[in-house]
Amino acid sequence: MTKSKFWDAIIVGGGVIGSSIAYYMSARGMKVVLIDRDRFGQQASIAAAGMLAAQAEINEAGPFFDLARTSRALFPPLARDLQALTGMDIGFTRKGLLRVGITSADVEALQQTIAFQHSVGEQAEWLSTEQVIQREPEISRELRGAMLVEGDGQVDAPVLSIAYAKAAVALGADIKEFTEVRSLLIEHGRIAGVITSEEVLRSDRVIIASGIWSGALLEQVRLNCPIYPVKGECFSVLTDKPLISSTIFSHGCYLVPKKGGRIIVGATSKLHSYDRKVTLGGISTLLEAAKKLVPSIVNAEWEKAWSGLRPQTLDGLPYLGEHETYKGLYVAAGHYRNGILLSPITGKCVADWAEGKSKKHLSLEPYRIHRHQHISQEKVGFPT
Amino acid sequence: MTKSKFWDAIIVGGGVIGSSIAYYMSARGMKVVLIDRDRFGQQASIAAAGMLAAQAEINEAGPFFDLARTSRALFPPLARDLQALTGMDIGFTRKGLLRVGITSADVEALQQTIAFQHSVGEQAEWLSTEQVIQREPEISRELRGAMLVEGDGQVDAPVLSIAYAKAAVALGADIKEFTEVRSLLIEHGRIAGVITSEEVLRSDRVIIASGIWSGALLEQVRLNCPIYPVKGECFSVLTDKPLISSTIFSHGCYLVPKKGGRIIVGATSKLHSYDRKVTLGGISTLLEAAKKLVPSIVNAEWEKAWSGLRPQTLDGLPYLGEHETYKGLYVAAGHYRNGILLSPITGKCVADWAEGKSKKHLSLEPYRIHRHQHISQEKVGFPT
Amino acid sequence: MTKSKFWDAIIVGGGVIGSSIAYYMSARGMKVVLIDRDRFGQQASIAAAGMLAAQAEINEAGPFFDLARTSRALFPPLARDLQALTGMDIGFTRKGLLRVGITSADVEALQQTIAFQHSVGEQAEWLSTEQVIQREPEISRELRGAMLVEGDGQVDAPVLSIAYAKAAVALGADIKEFTEVRSLLIEHGRIAGVITSEEVLRSDRVIIASGIWSGALLEQVRLNCPIYPVKGECFSVLTDKPLISSTIFSHGCYLVPKKGGRIIVGATSKLHSYDRKVTLGGISTLLEAAKKLVPSIVNAEWEKAWSGLRPQTLDGLPYLGEHETYKGLYVAAGHYRNGILLSPITGKCVADWAEGKSKKHLSLEPYRIHRHQHISQEKVGFPT
Amino acid sequence: MTKSKFWDAIIVGGGVIGSSIAYYMSARGMKVVLIDRDRFGQQASIAAAGMLAAQAEINEAGPFFDLARTSRALFPPLARDLQALTGMDIGFTRKGLLRVGITSADVEALQQTIAFQHSVGEQAEWLSTEQVIQREPEISRELRGAMLVEGDGQVDAPVLSIAYAKAAVALGADIKEFTEVRSLLIEHGRIAGVITSEEVLRSDRVIIASGIWSGALLEQVRLNCPIYPVKGECFSVLTDKPLISSTIFSHGCYLVPKKGGRIIVGATSKLHSYDRKVTLGGISTLLEAAKKLVPSIVNAEWEKAWSGLRPQTLDGLPYLGEHETYKGLYVAAGHYRNGILLSPITGKCVADWAEGKSKKHLSLEPYRIHRHQHISQEKVGFPT
Repeated sequence: MTKSKFWDAIIVGGGVIGSSIAYYMSARGMKVVLIDRDRFGQQASIAAAGMLAAQAEINEAGPFFDLARTSRALFPPLARDLQALTGMDIGFTRKGLLRVGITSADVEALQQTIAFQHSVGEQAEWLSTEQVIQREPEISRELRGAMLVEGDGQVDAPVLSIAYAKAAVALGADIKEFTEVRSLLIEHGRIAGVITSEEVLRSDRVIIASGIWSGALLEQVRLNCPIYPVKGECFSVLTDKPLISSTIFSHGCYLVPKKGGRIIVGATSKLHSYDRKVTLGGISTLLEAAKKLVPSIVNAEWEKAWSGLRPQTLDGLPYLGEHETYKGLYVAAGHYRNGILLSPITGKCVADWAEGKSKKHLSLEPYRIHRHQHISQEKVGFPT
Repeated sequence: MTKSKFWDAIIVGGGVIGSSIAYYMSARGMKVVLIDRDRFGQQASIAAAGMLAAQAEINEAGPFFDLARTSRALFPPLARDLQALTGMDIGFTRKGLLRVGITSADVEALQQTIAFQHSVGEQAEWLSTEQVIQREPEISRELRGAMLVEGDGQVDAPVLSIAYAKAAVALGADIKEFTEVRSLLIEHGRIAGVITSEEVLRSDRVIIASGIWSGALLEQVRLNCPIYPVKGECFSVLTDKPLISSTIFSHGCYLVPKKGGRIIVGATSKLHSYDRKVTLGGISTLLEAAKKLVPSIVNAEWEKAWSGLRPQTLDGLPYLGEHETYKGLYVAAGHYRNGILLSPITGKCVADWAEGKSKKHLSLEPYRIHRHQHISQEKVGFPT
Repeated sequence: MTKSKFWDAIIVGGGVIGSSIAYYMSARGMKVVLIDRDRFGQQASIAAAGMLAAQAEINEAGPFFDLARTSRALFPPLARDLQALTGMDIGFTRKGLLRVGITSADVEALQQTIAFQHSVGEQAEWLSTEQVIQREPEISRELRGAMLVEGDGQVDAPVLSIAYAKAAVALGADIKEFTEVRSLLIEHGRIAGVITSEEVLRSDRVIIASGIWSGALLEQVRLNCPIYPVKGECFSVLTDKPLISSTIFSHGCYLVPKKGGRIIVGATSKLHSYDRKVTLGGISTLLEAAKKLVPSIVNAEWEKAWSGLRPQTLDGLPYLGEHETYKGLYVAAGHYRNGILLSPITGKCVADWAEGKSKKHLSLEPYRIHRHQHISQEKVGFPT
Repeated sequence: MTKSKFWDAIIVGGGVIGSSIAYYMSARGMKVVLIDRDRFGQQASIAAAGMLAAQAEINEAGPFFDLARTSRALFPPLARDLQALTGMDIGFTRKGLLRVGITSADVEALQQTIAFQHSVGEQAEWLSTEQVIQREPEISRELRGAMLVEGDGQVDAPVLSIAYAKAAVALGADIKEFTEVRSLLIEHGRIAGVITSEEVLRSDRVIIASGIWSGALLEQVRLNCPIYPVKGECFSVLTDKPLISSTIFSHGCYLVPKKGGRIIVGATSKLHSYDRKVTLGGISTLLEAAKKLVPSIVNAEWEKAWSGLRPQTLDGLPYLGEHETYKGLYVAAGHYRNGILLSPITGKCVADWAEGKSKKHLSLEPYRIHRHQHISQEKVGFPT
């Protein structure tokens, strides 16, 4: 009844994180199987606008900043490699990101961010209102300058997610869509595989990368990694001629210009919302914010609205690491809004672990998967 | 090469007007062919919210009011007949329409409308703010009463349009979708049929019901019926439980409750706009107006947005009648926002004409198709 | 953190079965909450063609036949009640079903079925090839007569499923879409509610109606109700004029005429297939079978293809009943291809149980939920 | 009322031909306006599989072959230029095309084609059945070798069409979607612009590139260029792992592998069919042919079906050239199934003409737009 086959790793979750792990492991010659309970790349991964905001959103030194920068640097070769393996263009571009100041408090904060960026050797530049308008003629006149980050690029998030999986397949990975992992298979105190809705799959390495759905499996090994959903709503518009050339970002609203004149406007943050319904209120909030940033966007053509569930954690950092007791069991989940950006470094780390390499130059201590082990379930249960 | 077949009538235009004519003529035993350059029921007909606002929008006596009331009265038997012939439920209901007063000028105008309705023997009622709220608990508190019209119902406009055509087919009508009428066939000074992209179709009766696309054919017979497009944008939302029970209408924005918890919010009016793109600005306008009428609509789920091109005329009245010179050539076009409401009476009139009956009790003089014959083309060409 | 509220019943699963239960219980004045991990009515319920084949597929007396006939008889009042409550037309019609004989073995089997139907007092009639052709002129000439069942009707399956839920809401039911039930709440040896992804819901009555997803919850109470998926693929076509008037059925392929000229062609049966992908092979099989039954269907317009996962059991009978140990816990799942047909009687039974009524005239013994308790998991695990 | 503006050219028709012309003219610094009665790239252009079959379908020397080869050679730089201007990847690849022999007559014909290709200095190679299978392991065993053409590549046809238009816009072109050209504006015996549904547009150069809709405008200048529609139906499937790597072609059925595991299967040819409905018969024909070429395609996932109207001419050659009497009026239409392949050379030619350059090395005499001037309309009217 139960079939057995031995893989180098079983990866549970076919979002951008699991697919990246499948790709990087396959690229090192390991034989993996990637599993999802639905189709690959349908949840948080499909919903992202694809900003690679390593600098624009971070204003303090620390391991997260290093991780983000390291990951961002992996995109140029990644784009080439994925195109060669799959023919898919992940739309990697670096047209810059403008973080706009509207209040005087904004201006102060942005200038501090610029100072921080310079202190760590990154580029970031203050543009006066005139300079901003020269660069983006359609931008609102109601602003007080902006921080320009040339280094922060973007990708086509849904394509990236699928391209990872397709590239893994091209390199020999097996895939199983519409397959639910019902439990982990533990033998002699260590991981031995998973039990799916259809069969038993065997491997001495299992990676849980199921975003907000990771919890049930982790409970089985008494690991407390609270990950809860934060719904993000977005919409897109189409323009005949590109309205903006850089990503424009302010007060939680971003306008990301995509190829062919499309602009993605995102994103709301609705705590602990499992449902994926886009609300009229969500569209209203985004629409008003977008009009304030680029008034002429009202003439653009409505395309569509959608949402995604981002996997948030208690401290905003992902869980990355191996289980202390059940050797061979890894977690890579909880990337919140940074899943696209952090996907290459996450895939690379897991592939390194599998090869027994350690990341000397990059401390993963802050991402320890046991770090919330002693917080009571009651307390973390249902944040509001 | 050219095929010939003799129909009792050739109907050019498969929108709600042409389809209604096909239905009423078929129901009288005439053999007709209904032609459209695309699919049936795709233009203004598919885009309407389906309000049958015979009373709510009219505040003066006159032939248009009579036409509207007469047509409204045809819906109950029509709904039954179409269901019997096609199995399709046109969603005819009479849950009333609330026209809401917000300013004191609104209140005055609405009360005059009520007085007018009473003077012509129609029901219409003034509700105080408290009464309105009792009837519609989700309605905004920022209003000053409303006019309630119980008699004005609604239908599912896209279904109505298709049901007419399907019922006509069930009664023996022929149909030709994706067929463009390139010119009228005139022989010995009277109509003899049409020439399509594929063949010659013969009949001594041709009815032009092509909405904003009627112009080219009419030019051929030197008839000046200026019809220009007015784009109307709409969107719909879904609610778990019905939020409102009546249609709520004010200042150009209406909220029409549909079965299953759907609400249609409409509609903008963009003069002389042939393109069917829904603009972000259009959605923004409707959304703000809807929030003002029913604040809790922000919690509803976004469904979709669409638009339609309404065929407007210089005096706001449709063209209905026979060509003075080319006998057998009829026009039924230019119904603007009243196409759904007026479709039964229009179909019935054309069927009466074909049977040589006259409408004694209903003057069609105001709809004469030659009434704008002497207005210079330059003047009417491109209204703005 | 955990909210508590007391319902008369918590219904887990918003497919046609769970929604029917919610409707019937609400109609009796009970306050229920209906929960689904996704949207309501999206799985087996949305995929069905809606045949109410109480007679056409059954040729032996027994409790299942009684159940099917009893349930079929509930549709006429149900259609009226749901329309009144929700405005939705479930498309209930009784235009008959033709089960076509192609081989001589078919003919023999069909005539035995007719004899059986007569023996239990049901109508069923043998039509000669000529009679069949007279009734359905587009049917293939390659047949040897057919069994006509006038009593077997049909409904619009996706509408039925949604209408149940909307009617329940209209009657006061609460609903929770996008809510995953993570475990049952057991207190003092009896059911006390469920724990969802978001909160604890309390009731002393929980009904599990989750089709193929029922297993995980039942494991918690050590109940072995093996339910496995059987994928059914379908497609639909559109015709200008109705091609057929009855449902035509033979050798696993049925053509169900729907309103507006649509025909649904179904359905393949792919054992133990959790994925919902429609295969080219599935379409090919159905298409060839449909062409053999109604050759002129090749001229029909392709509309779309889809699939659903039917919840199959070891003996083909649903599980209906209360848990022997954990009082208040009910199962109503595993209706395979009969979910639409059996939904009214299932809803009614559960409502009866909740009111302490017993179904004297209808033995539910064959549906006992403990009947497969002693079959080893290994044996039932993964049927092929 | 009438606005006037002077463009270097007005291009009527926003399909792949008109858009290519707009791009090449804009790239030479000319100011053009591109007009379509609907959205750009929606008709034949969106429906094509994108094969660049310059060699595989041609087996005689002549101007058409030269045109095709010249055009094919323009794709590599075109792909780069369009990506740079718009960010869009037109999916240009050269993975080869296998034209499969099934009968002995096929084999003979293919070997003659190879001999012809060699005689004109082109590459083409005969592969034995074993070699074919080695290259394409999923191919049917029921074949007798194949012709391999390495030089024939493919593009993503819908993307190409849009990318031309977007690139033209990036270079300064104006665009007008949803704008119907009602007539040509002729002044003093030469072209002076066009009259649209909204305004008069002025230019002393007008290019008609409206495919099957070109006729009405050409009638105005008494030009007889019979162009009639040939409907082509296609469908696509998705595979987890790429099933084939080359385009596989035989007896009117081709399987074109696209990125991400998609395969497009095309195409039927339905003469004089204006309607765009995909028939069940069309799918059946393609499906059976595809199964014969690659049996395991039955396991692929159905994606969707669509159709396009290809503009066919009496001799199978497009119309390319200037009107003899009305100077400044050009026609570029009737490219049948070669519109994607011939789009670059067509755009380049028209741009050359506008600059007064002649194409010395490429005779356009066979494409003369007056070549069917003396064929009676009756005769060419409605080919069957």
